[in-house]
Amino acid sequence: MKAGMIGLGAMGAGMAGNLAKAGFLAAIYNRTMEKAETLAKELNVAVFDRIEALAAEVDVVLLCVSADGDVLAVVEAIAQTIKPGSIVVDMSTVSSDTARHAAAILAEKRVSFLDAPVSGGVEGAKNGTLAMMVGGDEDALEKVRPILQAMSARIIHMGITGSGQAAKAVNQVMCAGINQAVTEALAFAQAQQLPMEKLIDAVSGGAAGNWFLQHRGNTMTNNKFAPGFKLALHHKDLKICRAMAEKAQIPLPLTDMTIGDYERLITAGYGDEDISALYRLKKQLFDNS
Amino acid sequence: MKAGMIGLGAMGAGMAGNLAKAGFLAAIYNRTMEKAETLAKELNVAVFDRIEALAAEVDVVLLCVSADGDVLAVVEAIAQTIKPGSIVVDMSTVSSDTARHAAAILAEKRVSFLDAPVSGGVEGAKNGTLAMMVGGDEDALEKVRPILQAMSARIIHMGITGSGQAAKAVNQVMCAGINQAVTEALAFAQAQQLPMEKLIDAVSGGAAGNWFLQHRGNTMTNNKFAPGFKLALHHKDLKICRAMAEKAQIPLPLTDMTIGDYERLITAGYGDEDISALYRLKKQLFDNS
Repeated sequence: MKAGMIGLGAMGAGMAGNLAKAGFLAAIYNRTMEKAETLAKELNVAVFDRIEALAAEVDVVLLCVSADGDVLAVVEAIAQTIKPGSIVVDMSTVSSDTARHAAAILAEKRVSFLDAPVSGGVEGAKNGTLAMMVGGDEDALEKVRPILQAMSARIIHMGITGSGQAAKAVNQVMCAGINQAVTEALAFAQAQQLPMEKLIDAVSGGAAGNWFLQHRGNTMTNNKFAPGFKLALHHKDLKICRAMAEKAQIPLPLTDMTIGDYERLITAGYGDEDISALYRLKKQLFDNS
Repeated sequence: MKAGMIGLGAMGAGMAGNLAKAGFLAAIYNRTMEKAETLAKELNVAVFDRIEALAAEVDVVLLCVSADGDVLAVVEAIAQTIKPGSIVVDMSTVSSDTARHAAAILAEKRVSFLDAPVSGGVEGAKNGTLAMMVGGDEDALEKVRPILQAMSARIIHMGITGSGQAAKAVNQVMCAGINQAVTEALAFAQAQQLPMEKLIDAVSGGAAGNWFLQHRGNTMTNNKFAPGFKLALHHKDLKICRAMAEKAQIPLPLTDMTIGDYERLITAGYGDEDISALYRLKKQLFDNS
């Protein structure tokens, strides 16, 4: 199986590296061409300047881009040239509606589509330890599973098309709440002048232990907010989640709080920082009090 | 070193088991005598009906009780008979002020006091994998470290007397926020009719991964709320945390929200359930909407 990868951002580049290492990656494409050319040399794979050209050359097209519109534009381009019987796997975080729309476009070409958003941060993408939530046809998933395993430690089939994105929405809602929980607690700790590194070590080992504390606790308390996961992107995801929740008439108080906090941070110029920049706000509040 | 253990609740009984297994436990005491007698037979250790009698017989007294008043009453009793040079280790979750008060009482008898609250749930107590946050004299900690290691996977010296309790307060604040985050997200998932077991498995492997989701996700979504960690006890802890935060003029919005939610649940008769019973409230809200 020959795979092509579209979208080489912080997540996509890490994924492409692992696909190449496992011998699956044949071709890559990125909107910013320079990025693709550099990575193609590094990974020794073909680089294409048009999505249509890449899609004609491979059996499996993987993509990881930023927004709903980008996914649909990429899928429209893929549909022009892709061979019947191929499989398209979208690892972007977008709405379930977009997943269903993309699947419908490709179904007309007798091409399978899987929505397969991931979680695990840039570390997970780089180390091939992502968690992947997959919606769509189970047979198609089994065919591409060896490829996905090159990037993921955990691949879970959630159900029909769109259910991968629905699961990812749950993941993003939980991330928002955990960001609130960890930043609130660590700002409280710092105000008590506890030794932060020791505190983070101790708390990580107990019932409050979590990925975010372990991976972002020491950076945020040292005022380092390099992404990681860009705050403006999580903000975009949470607005999708809120729309889904409103449709179902479901309250998401922590998500609402986080959207508001992120908007204050984006206005203040911190949208390109890691989501742990929420800590700035928690500390500012304390300093102002 | 001969150790005695006072307080054999859900946490204390697990700890006593591990102390006995490691050969340190000589004696136990519990306010409800029957519990102590049963456990004493099981562990083949002495049982005392008075704290003063136990304290006279051992080199290290460990205690794990529920409230500030209980700790001070136990420490007053210990102080009547304990040998100079002994060490008292309090694993209860109480205020830093109580830790300082207890240390002062024992200092008069030339006895060291460590505040050493733990996290890791009943599972951690049973399996000897607790995280322990210790305040007080470092030399005293080194002397009892072999004993504490029988119960803990992680023992962290936080600083002077009271700093163990301050760290635990941070832990309890974080637990409250994570409870909010996990219950909000899982109720959102259930409203979307996602397959919950698979969802919990997938999300656990990514950037939203956390102890609480892994250990309570499947029970709460199956409407099982056996403690675990009693909601009424966490409520008590959070009120201590809020008082500390108010003193320092620090806002703790998630903690405030959780105290309010717990009070609704306690009024409705769920105070003896696990803290994951917060899920009841999240689901009820959705059903009402």
